[in-house]
Amino acid sequence: MTALYSFGLGIGTQNSEGKWLEVFYPEPLLNPDDNILSALKSAIGYDSGNQVITLDKNTLEELENALNKAGETAMAAIAKQFKQSERPAVATILSSDDAPASVPEGYLKLHLLSHRLVKPNHTNLSGLFGVLLNVAWTNEGAIDISELADRQVQARMENRNLSVDSVDKFPKMVDYVVPAGVRIADTSRVRLGAYIGEGTTIMHEGFVNFNAGTESTSMIEGRISQGVFVKSGSDLGGGSSTMGTLSGGGNIIITIGNQCLLGANSGLGIPLGDRCTVEAGLYITSGTKVTLLDDHNQVVGQTKARELAGKNDLLFRRNSTTGTVECLTNKSAVELNEALHTSN
Amino acid sequence: MTALYSFGLGIGTQNSEGKWLEVFYPEPLLNPDDNILSALKSAIGYDSGNQVITLDKNTLEELENALNKAGETAMAAIAKQFKQSERPAVATILSSDDAPASVPEGYLKLHLLSHRLVKPNHTNLSGLFGVLLNVAWTNEGAIDISELADRQVQARMENRNLSVDSVDKFPKMVDYVVPAGVRIADTSRVRLGAYIGEGTTIMHEGFVNFNAGTESTSMIEGRISQGVFVKSGSDLGGGSSTMGTLSGGGNIIITIGNQCLLGANSGLGIPLGDRCTVEAGLYITSGTKVTLLDDHNQVVGQTKARELAGKNDLLFRRNSTTGTVECLTNKSAVELNEALHTSN
Amino acid sequence: MTALYSFGLGIGTQNSEGKWLEVFYPEPLLNPDDNILSALKSAIGYDSGNQVITLDKNTLEELENALNKAGETAMAAIAKQFKQSERPAVATILSSDDAPASVPEGYLKLHLLSHRLVKPNHTNLSGLFGVLLNVAWTNEGAIDISELADRQVQARMENRNLSVDSVDKFPKMVDYVVPAGVRIADTSRVRLGAYIGEGTTIMHEGFVNFNAGTESTSMIEGRISQGVFVKSGSDLGGGSSTMGTLSGGGNIIITIGNQCLLGANSGLGIPLGDRCTVEAGLYITSGTKVTLLDDHNQVVGQTKARELAGKNDLLFRRNSTTGTVECLTNKSAVELNEALHTSN
Repeated sequence: MTALYSFGLGIGTQNSEGKWLEVFYPEPLLNPDDNILSALKSAIGYDSGNQVITLDKNTLEELENALNKAGETAMAAIAKQFKQSERPAVATILSSDDAPASVPEGYLKLHLLSHRLVKPNHTNLSGLFGVLLNVAWTNEGAIDISELADRQVQARMENRNLSVDSVDKFPKMVDYVVPAGVRIADTSRVRLGAYIGEGTTIMHEGFVNFNAGTESTSMIEGRISQGVFVKSGSDLGGGSSTMGTLSGGGNIIITIGNQCLLGANSGLGIPLGDRCTVEAGLYITSGTKVTLLDDHNQVVGQTKARELAGKNDLLFRRNSTTGTVECLTNKSAVELNEALHTSN
Repeated sequence: MTALYSFGLGIGTQNSEGKWLEVFYPEPLLNPDDNILSALKSAIGYDSGNQVITLDKNTLEELENALNKAGETAMAAIAKQFKQSERPAVATILSSDDAPASVPEGYLKLHLLSHRLVKPNHTNLSGLFGVLLNVAWTNEGAIDISELADRQVQARMENRNLSVDSVDKFPKMVDYVVPAGVRIADTSRVRLGAYIGEGTTIMHEGFVNFNAGTESTSMIEGRISQGVFVKSGSDLGGGSSTMGTLSGGGNIIITIGNQCLLGANSGLGIPLGDRCTVEAGLYITSGTKVTLLDDHNQVVGQTKARELAGKNDLLFRRNSTTGTVECLTNKSAVELNEALHTSN
Repeated sequence: MTALYSFGLGIGTQNSEGKWLEVFYPEPLLNPDDNILSALKSAIGYDSGNQVITLDKNTLEELENALNKAGETAMAAIAKQFKQSERPAVATILSSDDAPASVPEGYLKLHLLSHRLVKPNHTNLSGLFGVLLNVAWTNEGAIDISELADRQVQARMENRNLSVDSVDKFPKMVDYVVPAGVRIADTSRVRLGAYIGEGTTIMHEGFVNFNAGTESTSMIEGRISQGVFVKSGSDLGGGSSTMGTLSGGGNIIITIGNQCLLGANSGLGIPLGDRCTVEAGLYITSGTKVTLLDDHNQVVGQTKARELAGKNDLLFRRNSTTGTVECLTNKSAVELNEALHTSN
């Protein structure tokens, strides 16, 4: 019996044609125990492959019993609970990390990220945009865009306030899970699928896309684009920008090392090593020509920023007298010359 | 019989003194058919000029019948529907594009923009700020600011959550209309009166003021100020800024041509032609001195950015070695010299 | 009898263990009249020091009577009203401006700021972060983070939308008070404890932290960090940044004088005097080397920006030809040389 990649019991919202708009998995599993797999096979006829199986009260009860027999009491409790749900329930079973083929599959993978079960860029999200529907996220729940206008007229006539908070393929993360030890001042700016490490504070100006995030303690007042991952102890200043693989960054995946600082209104188009700083207001793209300074503040040479990708202990600044973009290092001139020769 | 400029049947919210706070028009019309005009004259005594006529169930029924007789069945259906409304109904009739003189008139014009019936800067909004009231937009609907505090105490005592989402003269667009083919990740950042073209995605950092917007496909992660219009295929990077006529841009109306790119954290104070790029992190104001480079990357001369307004195929960047703001063109030195002479 | 520092009658939310999550004071008082103090002593046994006294219907009635007898009819009316409250009531009495020791005390001080009774940096907030709890601010009110997940599952099963708007120690200001004469386009970006002067407009991109704010008329489209105060008639352009004492600004408290302008996407790390401008896109930190120009646009010398802190009539810009950060003054070369000698 091959182990599963992931499993989740969810409840969700469907449009009037029975299409899934979104699915909520209170306890998604990565590489679930084989007991789970056995229960799925015996109770709801799962055979193999990636499957999405809709569950009614009877199948939920059978699954509850099978899970209890298999000793999977936590998951059994969810099945039991869902028997009372007014929303439709679903079992999403992923035997492999293939591209998501449906809304329940896509949502399960986004949950894996936000529950910190997989890190950004470590689960296959190919084609996700094509799979997810554009949804109106309202104070009355998820509404299919094509069904919104009628509901809006009706609500106003009945003197109800139907507020549309977002029109997007992705919901906000915190309506699905608030991972332990985080503060998120404006939750509309963190999409489901973000990975927010314990100890992270995201201020009002912070933003985290899906498949992006922070490893642990960080103060985030800037924008973490799709694919970008920030390691421990690094801060993003207010309005700072990181280039994602979806927008401007091309194929370079940007990681920010430990104890880095992006100054306010700065920007970053290359990966950083540890203990690097980008001065407030300075935007470093991969093509920026950077003048290198050694540990005595002497000019050693010039290189493109992309050649400095991933190196430690760099301070990027724009000289306020000459306008030159400089990189101050803690290396000797000899060491830097060697590095320049190597990289060019 | 002179044709009307615009017509809308709306329902809205009034404060305790019967003053309109906001009006919702499900189907506003620009240059409506003369049949509409005839029906308004026969059913609710419209004569001429710009008028706002409050409708009760009887007048709604008369209007419904007259519209049906005139063959205007869609509008008749709205009149019929509004007979059930718990909120007051209104017919707003604009014979001419004069400055809006009341809340219902102002809202009708904002609807025309967001329904893509008129483009930004093509309907008269003079004095709009003076006409609109400052409103608390809450989860219990629009509330007059002077009536808010009492309602807040009352709600808390009754253990209800009265959430104030905005204190502003303009509501968010999507509570009035979600035009086809758009995504708006954080809807609080797009005001009613924005014109959002089909195919536009507005990410969380994007913002669109009233009387501003996009023509069609665009990825907007920056701020589109009042009066600014972005043509097809152009992208605004995260945190990018455009100067509006209300704030800093003075009398220059800023248009961004086709296939342009404003880099992340960049800014723009001049109109752009087609296929122009402003590098990430660079702010171009109309007074910025720009060094012109020809198609061989040779310096040809210097000019103020405003002289380059509306020209095509420009790339603005700050030289990272010299700090000079440069404009890279695809023109020969001879062509550029001619252009410089003409504009100076 | 020593006068009190502050007093408030509030109602609030407690978690399932009876811990305060938040308290709302409709009418907080600074230096209340001694009649208040007498009433508190006679009715609810207040003796001395900073105290938080929970009130039931009986004590509320006794307090109401005592306040009425003392001629404090406004506060008596609140006591009377709170007898109907479904939420618990509290009397928070501060004899001195000591560091807040509890949630009700912390919230009372935040109210003092937002009710414009004390200006930023003029009430003792030491240790506030340690006192306040991290709360989920939802459409069903304040929820303890540890109790959220269960409520989310339950709400979804019952087909209700439980929306989490913020996970933070601070709520948004406007749910507690909307001070007179302000507009706040996106209220999630102004924390309780902000001081928003009459005549201030905060646009969607504006942000104001607690213990920070504006004196009177201002257009705020940038970020006012903790501790920063903006005087009358000054504007912060879109995306502009100010360095707070919590983040990057260190111990320097940043004040922006009268009639100043921070351009869009600019940034500020020093206090400004009156009538100063920072050009769009330029970030001035305290360590920025600035080339000084006299009233004839001639270079006089160079200094660090921190030496210019608080001086009037300065224009900061980056020369777009040379990349040099310049400060244009209205002083003669002689005056500037004297100033340079003094400050260095």
